Amino acid sequence: MEEQTHTEKRTVQPHKQQMLNRLKRIEGQVRGVHNMVEDDRYCVDILNQIAAIQSAVNKVSVQLMEDHTHHCVSNAIESGEGEESINELMDVMKRMLK
Amino acid sequence: MEEQTHTEKRTVQPHKQQMLNRLKRIEGQVRGVHNMVEDDRYCVDILNQIAAIQSAVNKVSVQLMEDHTHHCVSNAIESGEGEESINELMDVMKRMLK
Amino acid sequence: MEEQTHTEKRTVQPHKQQMLNRLKRIEGQVRGVHNMVEDDRYCVDILNQIAAIQSAVNKVSVQLMEDHTHHCVSNAIESGEGEESINELMDVMKRMLK
Amino acid sequence: MEEQTHTEKRTVQPHKQQMLNRLKRIEGQVRGVHNMVEDDRYCVDILNQIAAIQSAVNKVSVQLMEDHTHHCVSNAIESGEGEESINELMDVMKRMLK
Repeated sequence: MEEQTHTEKRTVQPHKQQMLNRLKRIEGQVRGVHNMVEDDRYCVDILNQIAAIQSAVNKVSVQLMEDHTHHCVSNAIESGEGEESINELMDVMKRMLK
Repeated sequence: MEEQTHTEKRTVQPHKQQMLNRLKRIEGQVRGVHNMVEDDRYCVDILNQIAAIQSAVNKVSVQLMEDHTHHCVSNAIESGEGEESINELMDVMKRMLK
Repeated sequence: MEEQTHTEKRTVQPHKQQMLNRLKRIEGQVRGVHNMVEDDRYCVDILNQIAAIQSAVNKVSVQLMEDHTHHCVSNAIESGEGEESINELMDVMKRMLK
Repeated sequence: MEEQTHTEKRTVQPHKQQMLNRLKRIEGQVRGVHNMVEDDRYCVDILNQIAAIQSAVNKVSVQLMEDHTHHCVSNAIESGEGEESINELMDVMKRMLK
């Protein structure tokens, strides 16, 4: 799951293709909202589309955090390096909760 | 601010260009995250980038809601149609709070 | 709905009794969590109770904001003092979105 | 940290007294808001107090989640029962994100 290169950690995501597809869709949704603002569409219609983007982005974030915890954090704990990895996870969670 | 066409409401956003610029940047950020997943970058680095996207999207949403309330909702109240417009605003707000 | 006393604004809440009942229940729920921590109950059981408190507090907050917008903000706009009242509402909304 | 009784798991919180003090304060804050509604205080003043309660409740929740992850989840992973414990943590996290 995790190859340690001399420059930076690498992690092959277990749901890689699913994530790439979701991100492509989100990119298209953002372009769609750009066009709606361009076309002077009604604010509430735009706000509803933005809410859909926020929900889609949250899903990617939660999936990534879940996989990270099951793999990277779990491996770190098993190899006796849990403290740092859990602190890192908690920082991520706090940012997500903001 | 608000032209009523026979098909759907139109609203020229008071911060239109600023919003278009922000949305272009967000689109680029989403593409950036797509590349990070493609390149098997470390989960926490990706999660931090996603948190930046969520924050940027929230800013667009709040700006839009603010302008909508100052213009569309305020005009609706002044012309005696406040009830429906306020209910619409509250629905948007509740979705944003989710 | 809104009496202006020389010291500070007064507002009789349209859902006053419902709100008082909810706040009483929330107070009891907080006491309940206090007892769970006292009794060394399992963290996840406590976290679930706290999530229930957060949800109950959010409901009171949204109800209050809704009533405020329908009454105080709407009255302020009708009497030509909408600008300040909307800015005040937006500050509340931004704090709730944090 | 964690005694398994035949009825339910027990966990002595590492920040037990701090948490009990915070919960006592939150209980007082909720009573305070109850009095404000009783006294027909201005909506925005009440909403600001509720935002303070939400922030205090979030802090208790995050502290509890952090301690739980450092102790219960970490112990579960070390004893080969990480899968279930991580799933439990993710459920808590998703509820907090709502």
